[in-house]
Amino acid sequence: MSYRIGLDISGGDFAPFEPLKGAELARKEFGAAVVLIGLKEDLEKAAKKENIDLRNFTFIEAKEKIGMAEPPAYSVRRKKESSIVIGRNLLKEREIDAFVSCGNTGAVVCAATLGIGLIEGVERPGIGVLLPTLKGICLLIDVGANIDPKPLHLFQYGIMASEYYSLVLNKSNPAVGLLNIGEESSKGPDFVKDTYQLFSNSSLNFTGNSEAKDIFLGKCDCIICDGYVGNVALKVSEGLSEAMGKFLLENVKGDFLGSLGLFFLKKALKRIRKITDYAEYGGAPLLGVDGVIIIGHGRSKSYAIKNAIKVAIQELSRDLNIKIKRRINEICQDSRIREILAP
Amino acid sequence: MSYRIGLDISGGDFAPFEPLKGAELARKEFGAAVVLIGLKEDLEKAAKKENIDLRNFTFIEAKEKIGMAEPPAYSVRRKKESSIVIGRNLLKEREIDAFVSCGNTGAVVCAATLGIGLIEGVERPGIGVLLPTLKGICLLIDVGANIDPKPLHLFQYGIMASEYYSLVLNKSNPAVGLLNIGEESSKGPDFVKDTYQLFSNSSLNFTGNSEAKDIFLGKCDCIICDGYVGNVALKVSEGLSEAMGKFLLENVKGDFLGSLGLFFLKKALKRIRKITDYAEYGGAPLLGVDGVIIIGHGRSKSYAIKNAIKVAIQELSRDLNIKIKRRINEICQDSRIREILAP
Repeated sequence: MSYRIGLDISGGDFAPFEPLKGAELARKEFGAAVVLIGLKEDLEKAAKKENIDLRNFTFIEAKEKIGMAEPPAYSVRRKKESSIVIGRNLLKEREIDAFVSCGNTGAVVCAATLGIGLIEGVERPGIGVLLPTLKGICLLIDVGANIDPKPLHLFQYGIMASEYYSLVLNKSNPAVGLLNIGEESSKGPDFVKDTYQLFSNSSLNFTGNSEAKDIFLGKCDCIICDGYVGNVALKVSEGLSEAMGKFLLENVKGDFLGSLGLFFLKKALKRIRKITDYAEYGGAPLLGVDGVIIIGHGRSKSYAIKNAIKVAIQELSRDLNIKIKRRINEICQDSRIREILAP
Repeated sequence: MSYRIGLDISGGDFAPFEPLKGAELARKEFGAAVVLIGLKEDLEKAAKKENIDLRNFTFIEAKEKIGMAEPPAYSVRRKKESSIVIGRNLLKEREIDAFVSCGNTGAVVCAATLGIGLIEGVERPGIGVLLPTLKGICLLIDVGANIDPKPLHLFQYGIMASEYYSLVLNKSNPAVGLLNIGEESSKGPDFVKDTYQLFSNSSLNFTGNSEAKDIFLGKCDCIICDGYVGNVALKVSEGLSEAMGKFLLENVKGDFLGSLGLFFLKKALKRIRKITDYAEYGGAPLLGVDGVIIIGHGRSKSYAIKNAIKVAIQELSRDLNIKIKRRINEICQDSRIREILAP
């Protein structure tokens, strides 16, 4: 079966060129049926420049777009003709099977949450990002959808992350850790300690508290946290790698051997730059919403966008949301869990 | 005037050798009067190995030590004869003017808070760390003392950080930012939004919300956050730089030019490693406690310990705590601030 993947071509730092190129790559590589959503002038400009035959795509016109820096809730309410709101509507009406956007993250989350509703049993959506580690990939959730979560929300992120990891990343029973400031169960803020109780009484492969330094060392497959701290963890990593790159350049100035060394290292450094580039893994899944949504990094290039489309197809073909619904209800109805959650 | 700086020689990953070497460096370089506190066997072992003349130091014996992984509150209550508790007691009784320890951070904070009390007007102590950035140094506070702060606590961290920065790091009116997930004042958890109101109505040089990626880019001199998120930001940086180092080594394996490049880059990389090594800046000041306390990184070597002693002397000679008291009371008594804080 061919899934219809809606793609926002007017969102992201390199729109519309990179999204259109990404759509073309996905079509050529694995025959994706991409529905392009965005401004007509964007579409024509990009098709002309990239020399892409638009007859291979369906196009749904948007009359406006939401900028990367616009306030999410306000712009979603006001810009009913934007590519993000139209994409959301198409997904809601099942005119498309998934929606991929590299536009304003907050607006995508807001549009999805307000308009589509959640998977039955799920309390809050969460944004998961895939980070490369020394041992594989870490799914960190949430990185900004829910900044004031209850323990049940975090617990459900763990369930959803675990399903995602086993179905999309093909590792069953992944290790789930709770982000905290120490390994002991007595550590951390109250809502984290309460979440610990839920996890440790569940059938998930819970490995306890995980310190932030363990994220990139690859000690866990999934790491669970609230959206405020997750966002900080993600952004501090981005900032540090950017700073390190600049530091490296500054530090070899006037140092002949150093400059030569840097030149020789170019290839290795290129591979390493990917260490915090989650676009590489196809963008961030918005989990919990009753529809498949992938949020690409604003800086996504065509390669990342192609991967985002691929991940959307994987989520669909493996019935991720149906299985999340089943697992959430199974685990949250367990008597031990209900007892802990009882007021 | 010569200040008596108490140094825990039985705390830290490289105790007792590195602390003793650090004390000797501080004595030789700037005539510090160091009071060594720790186990007698530790002292003798280190003096012998490092060939250091103990007649240049005062020694106060401790009968036990608190391990790096022991639960802080419990061990402080139980181990009354530990170097950390004895150091705290000496500071309380003004037998020493400052206390430096590279031991169990939680235990130092706990001992200090329980036993010494806070500067008049200060509500909670906070741990500040000094991080190198592209533009200078960033003082990030709090990184773990207070995981459930009220807006007033965060606001006071800003006041204390600002004083520290101007007195110890010699930059008056430093830029103070509030760690958040976006720049707009409407972003983030409620306690952060409420803190924003306090800052923006104060006389501090408040530059608004600061995203985590800005920490290492050096957009602010001081960045304020709660201890949970600050700890995560610090630890994720440590983890990422460790992972990057390992990644680099892995990625040049079998790559002749890459390996050669790495060899040529050695010097530059060594400088860069320091980017997250706050030990370089003499350890982390515990601000708000009515006594000068510096918490060294567990991995501190003699050079870092010497710097920690130097920072302690600077805090003392510039009357940091007296000035913090004055500023806290001045700013918190301002009518606009009192109005915001009124229940």
